[in-house]
Amino acid sequence: MKNIILDLDTGIDDSLALAYAALSPEINLLGVTGTYGNVEMITGIQNSLNVLSAVGRSDVPVYAGEAQALTQTSFERHAVSSRIHGENGVGQVQFPVSKREKQEESAVAFLSRAMHTYKQELTIVTTGPLTNVATALMQDPFLKEWKGKLVLMGGALSVRGNVSHFAEANIAQDPEAAKLVLESNLDVTMVGLDVTMRSRLKLSQAIAWKQKESPRAKFFGDMLQYYIKNTLGTDETYIHDPSAVICALHPEFFTILPFYLTVETEGEDRGRTLVDHTRLREKNPTTKVCIDVDAAKVEENLGLLLGTRL
Amino acid sequence: MKNIILDLDTGIDDSLALAYAALSPEINLLGVTGTYGNVEMITGIQNSLNVLSAVGRSDVPVYAGEAQALTQTSFERHAVSSRIHGENGVGQVQFPVSKREKQEESAVAFLSRAMHTYKQELTIVTTGPLTNVATALMQDPFLKEWKGKLVLMGGALSVRGNVSHFAEANIAQDPEAAKLVLESNLDVTMVGLDVTMRSRLKLSQAIAWKQKESPRAKFFGDMLQYYIKNTLGTDETYIHDPSAVICALHPEFFTILPFYLTVETEGEDRGRTLVDHTRLREKNPTTKVCIDVDAAKVEENLGLLLGTRL
Repeated sequence: MKNIILDLDTGIDDSLALAYAALSPEINLLGVTGTYGNVEMITGIQNSLNVLSAVGRSDVPVYAGEAQALTQTSFERHAVSSRIHGENGVGQVQFPVSKREKQEESAVAFLSRAMHTYKQELTIVTTGPLTNVATALMQDPFLKEWKGKLVLMGGALSVRGNVSHFAEANIAQDPEAAKLVLESNLDVTMVGLDVTMRSRLKLSQAIAWKQKESPRAKFFGDMLQYYIKNTLGTDETYIHDPSAVICALHPEFFTILPFYLTVETEGEDRGRTLVDHTRLREKNPTTKVCIDVDAAKVEENLGLLLGTRL
Repeated sequence: MKNIILDLDTGIDDSLALAYAALSPEINLLGVTGTYGNVEMITGIQNSLNVLSAVGRSDVPVYAGEAQALTQTSFERHAVSSRIHGENGVGQVQFPVSKREKQEESAVAFLSRAMHTYKQELTIVTTGPLTNVATALMQDPFLKEWKGKLVLMGGALSVRGNVSHFAEANIAQDPEAAKLVLESNLDVTMVGLDVTMRSRLKLSQAIAWKQKESPRAKFFGDMLQYYIKNTLGTDETYIHDPSAVICALHPEFFTILPFYLTVETEGEDRGRTLVDHTRLREKNPTTKVCIDVDAAKVEENLGLLLGTRL
């Protein structure tokens, strides 16, 4: 069992990643921390509470995190996020509203506490902007010595970005936070568009889930169908956020290269992730990037787990 | 022995690549085709003739190629090229002027003829813009079926470009030609800044060459010293063009990934090389990219060959 904390801006693919982690027999899900991006932070944590309730995991605590980027005083949701994830973030699916509350402790305090408690026996998987982790690192200098793993969905090294030719959405939301995290000396694995766009979820899977007895399978089927319709508009869609959780469990599905990564924070390519050209001769990079993937393995793994357990 | 044609815009690192190929016992150098970039095409072929004469290889024919990009009617040398390579392209070193003339046949006609003659037993190594190869492909549709290998120095996939944040110099000179070649279905290996900036030539090597008896070693020592001073300005410099020749002989020094590559030709990132996001699911890409390198192996190989044979 791998101890995992998920840091989510809970839209549709985040919900799939959450269901995967909550239902996987290989994962000890310690908690979910909320961030902004696909939805406002406060909507995201409500979605996380609802999804956890739907999959029978109301034991997993949910923490409210930072509500906007390091350099911002507020967050305004992009129109494209509403279009892709629906106004409510989960494809207009009406999950039963969880009766649970979020925790009193903040996401940043929880992350910091868990990093100290579990040390190298902890993996943090982020599927949104890196503001919570960056804030924890800024508030607690000892975390620089943390020996656990951070797996982030975000960035685009070898392909175009998805909010511009240069930037992927999660990094673009808070380039300063991403830069701080990537240059922090932590063990970070980037799971970006380079790999997440290679793997696909099929409309036929959504249909199959909808036909199952389990009511929650129907919710997830509806949600996936909405997402497919509003992303690629074909009979399939990318596997963005779940890829990061799968990478945390099964790095062997991916081609992972050790490079010192950084983020452009100035100019037109603000938010672009790339290899730091000033560190090409330095040995033993702390950061790694998934540059390729055995897409069939990811698809089979995700389909099997959700298809069986939803 | 590997049959190789070099397509050069003969500045300083092109000259090093040319000397390497001309002196390597593993290479059957069939000819040198001239392009523009570091210098004007006509200056480049004179430099190639002079370098070949200096290294005792006046048997290698030199062909004049296209003098400007596909979409241009003229070529204007960039000021930075004069600064890095010197006004004469070879660091103001006065190589004895070769008494030979260029061939009557054009570079494009020669490339086309050699591709038909040698078929899969030919490797073309380019160190400048891809205008000559692109022109050959446009003029002779049968070349699309050519089964030989093209190894190009150019592009930047995971790092910043060197003429902008996006574009590397050789690709930036003629993005349309590069796109045509990368999307042509030929077996193409890209040796870009991703790897060429990882390997280094040292000032100490330049000094050692200058102290040798051989007059040509002194020329090359002076040239390398000029280049080091005007590129990094430290005690070393990048190994750009020679890396492509070394990759043609020793692909095992490099981490090479098979991806469908393309080139942006519109907008602010015109000239950027990247993985074609529309072809991520297609199998068996024809193009490959060098994403990492065992720099010590490249440096040792280059230093040994030039150090011994100059």
